[in-house]
Amino acid sequence: MKIEFWFEFASTYSYPAAMRIEALAASRDVQVAWRPFLLGPIFQQQGWNDSPFNIYQAKGRYMWRDMERVCERQDIPLRKPSTFPRNGLLPARVVCAHSEQAWVPGFVRAIYRANFADDADISSPAIVEQCLTALGQDAATILATSQTPTAKDKLKAQTAEAMERGVFGAPSFVVGDELFWGNDRLEDALAWARR
Amino acid sequence: MKIEFWFEFASTYSYPAAMRIEALAASRDVQVAWRPFLLGPIFQQQGWNDSPFNIYQAKGRYMWRDMERVCERQDIPLRKPSTFPRNGLLPARVVCAHSEQAWVPGFVRAIYRANFADDADISSPAIVEQCLTALGQDAATILATSQTPTAKDKLKAQTAEAMERGVFGAPSFVVGDELFWGNDRLEDALAWARR
Repeated sequence: MKIEFWFEFASTYSYPAAMRIEALAASRDVQVAWRPFLLGPIFQQQGWNDSPFNIYQAKGRYMWRDMERVCERQDIPLRKPSTFPRNGLLPARVVCAHSEQAWVPGFVRAIYRANFADDADISSPAIVEQCLTALGQDAATILATSQTPTAKDKLKAQTAEAMERGVFGAPSFVVGDELFWGNDRLEDALAWARR
Repeated sequence: MKIEFWFEFASTYSYPAAMRIEALAASRDVQVAWRPFLLGPIFQQQGWNDSPFNIYQAKGRYMWRDMERVCERQDIPLRKPSTFPRNGLLPARVVCAHSEQAWVPGFVRAIYRANFADDADISSPAIVEQCLTALGQDAATILATSQTPTAKDKLKAQTAEAMERGVFGAPSFVVGDELFWGNDRLEDALAWARR
């Protein structure tokens, strides 16, 4: 049984999902495929050149308050990033190029923590390096293999695949052809994987 | 303890919320204030002249599938309305003009059932009349008092109040100044009301 976790490092509600998915899926014997993608091209198709939470201000105000409640309940820290949305291209390339590596789940959580708890610039190679080093990884080699033309194309292709499969926001969970959107649907998606 | 239930008869996710809120709130000793409003003016402010589920097609496709799952779990029927969104102005005026009446919760459910289970035209006086009559009410009198200038202004004012208080979609639940958006947040809103 497998669940695909489609996430974007800039996405607010992907943060609580990323922090809990590995343990929750393991407790239900479901395997997680970590599938980063970019929301930018998907939002552009919808006519947005910014996060909808910035474009639609009442919705944005609500989202930040709701995130406070969600993170409080999940007991994870939240500091509103001074830049939103933050460019998550580099860490997304890192995950995309190394998706089968055992350090990936910990790296994903470290990047989300940097963005949404430490207000750090996750587009900076120094921050990404720091997250990799803290996990005992060879940051220089990983950063190099994550920025080859092949690695860049892989993330582009993965974003195109997301669109083709109906993903329109993050986080999304896919089980076979069944799509679930939003952190609130993680439990339902896991239940679907166990059917 | 009181919860305000802000709903729009055209709104898909307001349907499962409307079908369960009265019993759920009662079980937790929370009173419900039934507050219909119109999404049209709010969406227009955001630059939309249609439901976002029609404008953003991937999101719309997902929503109808998600609604199937939500309604199946809640064991309520769902038939995709042949017209979406349906104009809910008339029944909204009826509720707004009679919000303290004991028949209102049953009427709200009857209109939602008409729209989302029976594919009936809820903008038609005949359908609204039928829902009122089935509840043992004097439909002609209620329809008349729901369409006076005072009644029309009351719904306009209530829609303006929704906007002022940060409501940007339906269903929304308000407890004091705390806003909760979406059928998924009903339990949280009720818990907030009991704090």
